[in-house]
Amino acid sequence: MAVLTGREHRLSARARRTKEPQISWLLKKPLENPNIISLAAGLVDQQTLPARLIQQLVAELFENEDAAKRALQYGTTEGEANLRRLLASRLEQAGLQGPIDPENVVLTNGSQQLLFLATDVLVDPGDIVLVEDPTYFVYMGVLDAVGARTIGVPTDDEGIIPEALEETLRQLAADGDLPRVKLLYVMTYFQNPKGSSHSWRRREQIYEIIERYSSDENYIYIIEDAAYYELKFEGEDVPFLKTLDPQNERVLLAMTFSKAFAPGLRLGYGYLPSELTPHVLNQKGNHDFGSGNLAQNLVYHALKTGAFDSHSAMLRTRYQRKRDIMLDVLRSKFPPEVKYLEPKGGLYVWVTMPENVSTSPGGRFFEEALAREVLYVPGCYCYAQEEGRQKPDNQLRLCYAYIEEQPMIEGLHRLADACVAALR
Amino acid sequence: MAVLTGREHRLSARARRTKEPQISWLLKKPLENPNIISLAAGLVDQQTLPARLIQQLVAELFENEDAAKRALQYGTTEGEANLRRLLASRLEQAGLQGPIDPENVVLTNGSQQLLFLATDVLVDPGDIVLVEDPTYFVYMGVLDAVGARTIGVPTDDEGIIPEALEETLRQLAADGDLPRVKLLYVMTYFQNPKGSSHSWRRREQIYEIIERYSSDENYIYIIEDAAYYELKFEGEDVPFLKTLDPQNERVLLAMTFSKAFAPGLRLGYGYLPSELTPHVLNQKGNHDFGSGNLAQNLVYHALKTGAFDSHSAMLRTRYQRKRDIMLDVLRSKFPPEVKYLEPKGGLYVWVTMPENVSTSPGGRFFEEALAREVLYVPGCYCYAQEEGRQKPDNQLRLCYAYIEEQPMIEGLHRLADACVAALR
Repeated sequence: MAVLTGREHRLSARARRTKEPQISWLLKKPLENPNIISLAAGLVDQQTLPARLIQQLVAELFENEDAAKRALQYGTTEGEANLRRLLASRLEQAGLQGPIDPENVVLTNGSQQLLFLATDVLVDPGDIVLVEDPTYFVYMGVLDAVGARTIGVPTDDEGIIPEALEETLRQLAADGDLPRVKLLYVMTYFQNPKGSSHSWRRREQIYEIIERYSSDENYIYIIEDAAYYELKFEGEDVPFLKTLDPQNERVLLAMTFSKAFAPGLRLGYGYLPSELTPHVLNQKGNHDFGSGNLAQNLVYHALKTGAFDSHSAMLRTRYQRKRDIMLDVLRSKFPPEVKYLEPKGGLYVWVTMPENVSTSPGGRFFEEALAREVLYVPGCYCYAQEEGRQKPDNQLRLCYAYIEEQPMIEGLHRLADACVAALR
Repeated sequence: MAVLTGREHRLSARARRTKEPQISWLLKKPLENPNIISLAAGLVDQQTLPARLIQQLVAELFENEDAAKRALQYGTTEGEANLRRLLASRLEQAGLQGPIDPENVVLTNGSQQLLFLATDVLVDPGDIVLVEDPTYFVYMGVLDAVGARTIGVPTDDEGIIPEALEETLRQLAADGDLPRVKLLYVMTYFQNPKGSSHSWRRREQIYEIIERYSSDENYIYIIEDAAYYELKFEGEDVPFLKTLDPQNERVLLAMTFSKAFAPGLRLGYGYLPSELTPHVLNQKGNHDFGSGNLAQNLVYHALKTGAFDSHSAMLRTRYQRKRDIMLDVLRSKFPPEVKYLEPKGGLYVWVTMPENVSTSPGGRFFEEALAREVLYVPGCYCYAQEEGRQKPDNQLRLCYAYIEEQPMIEGLHRLADACVAALR
């Protein structure tokens, strides 16, 4: 990052709070040394990207010149009406109580923009946001930028631990801080980084606790980030947490076309509480007055023709296979002290080393891995940093999405060697 | 806008400051009544949108499957390296002193996102931003949202009046408010709404004044919004104001592919002072970690193959013709008391009625126009709202871009009738 010589005080408070993501240097390493195998990169599988399909969709869309020109014109801040209606009806089919008003479906630049807009609309500096511990590190960057106090709530393999959530809120209430709690951010399906989902029971418990600590005065919203919803390999269907909010008041559901279709289209959407929709749209109007119209039209056609659904079915098969390979190597090549969760969907495997083995940069294990030219995401980046609370630093995230099968196996072998060396 | 019943206090200060654009109701009118002819809409000419060309660019890009898949993958926050290099070299060809470091070229979702990010990075609530009076109303919405105090500086047909700028800054210095002045926002080419450009002499004068009132302590940046740069019909080429900043310290240049190519791709870019680039990128990382990769690839090919340049040449001819038609009707059908500027580029004609004729909604003229089913942008929306300073309300913006020639002529006839009625 460039150093501002003498003019840094001219930056806004927000700019001064906003840091380059801690993980940037790590993700750039493979550019410096192409021999490095990155099990850290969270990109999607390049081979699966729907090149032929997009070409076909463009051909179909552009057959009608008027339609093509509409797609190349400015759109609206909220997004294409057809697409919003279709998404509303798909959400109903997915089990949300209808009728869903398409007015509350808002297209955004990936779900990331929705996370940002929703947070910016609700959170003032000093306000409190609760997150799963560990959680999606990019979102914690957003929270830092808006000046939130981020509090991590411990999780197990079924998601947030209800007793921990209750205890956190009880303590905040005792400290008089409850009015500052604005949001709970939760990834319900195959979360980043753990790969685990919230069981239905947990969703109910979490919702009930938030509702109980919430009043009109101290209203607490929930962002349900369901970015990996379509990437379920096995296990039963669990309804959205959003289904517990049939009045559409509390839960902001964030979805994306990046994981199950094509991130290069940069499109996601939210289904928002009707009271919040106009406020999110007012911000979005200032940001860009609408997401790419051409991308929206392509996604509309992909959904309408069934191409999206068959593509995501193919993706599930492919990712499941890569997950299986990763788990196989973890099972057969790693020391038995190394534990990991077996994800039933999504893109990540969360690995826990023995307690005395730090996975953080600068630690022995990280250095052993780097010496062998293999990278992972250190678990420490995924935990909320809170004064006076120590977080585990013996974990790591592996991603089987972007990497090809053979280098993945090779990378895992290298990592197993690093493990053995670090445990020695 | 939905009314928050009892929960509005849960919104962030920014959300509470951010209003629906004043002009929204006006732009939606034609949806309610398709007989309305809108000379207000600022969309681009639909007939000219490059449908065939985009189809061809997609075909070429997708011939190489690997390249196609890269275009459908996540990109980087700053944008495609190839495209940034190409844009840097085009800026050099356009007269900016090189070598331009592509690191300071940042792709954004239209130039709007760049305006937002730059402003958010520099402006805290209570900080002062100077704008042309009148100026681009959407940008004033951004300033309201970040809590800026917006001060309009009077303009004439050559842009900001240097004496007025000097006097504004002198007064701010006398009041002790100079340290709060963070930015001057200026549209240098065929500005929205007046259609006029800053002469070279004016650019020099403005830059000199800002430099003189600026120090490291009280540093004042300039955003040069050159959205209509490519749409010059006639007259000499005037170098960017940015050329006065060869050290790349003070001026943020904002450009877009929306006006001269296709807004549906939602792409623009900025050339930023090197000290600000990392801060803008940190914010953009939080917003969306990068603009649409596919759109960037298409624009890259359009630029590389010369298709962009021939397309924008065609646009200039077309818009010039529409401008001529509009000016013809203004000349021949409107009462002689009605004055207007003859733009040498861009999309707008700025009309001034006699001083006692208000063009504001609710006024006689607006109602006469509405009764005849024709719309314009009332000039009042384009002036900075400042306590104790009265602004002209006898002006209006006409746009010849979106509307077809025949309805444009018909709309202007209706407006001339409304004029006669209002002057009666």
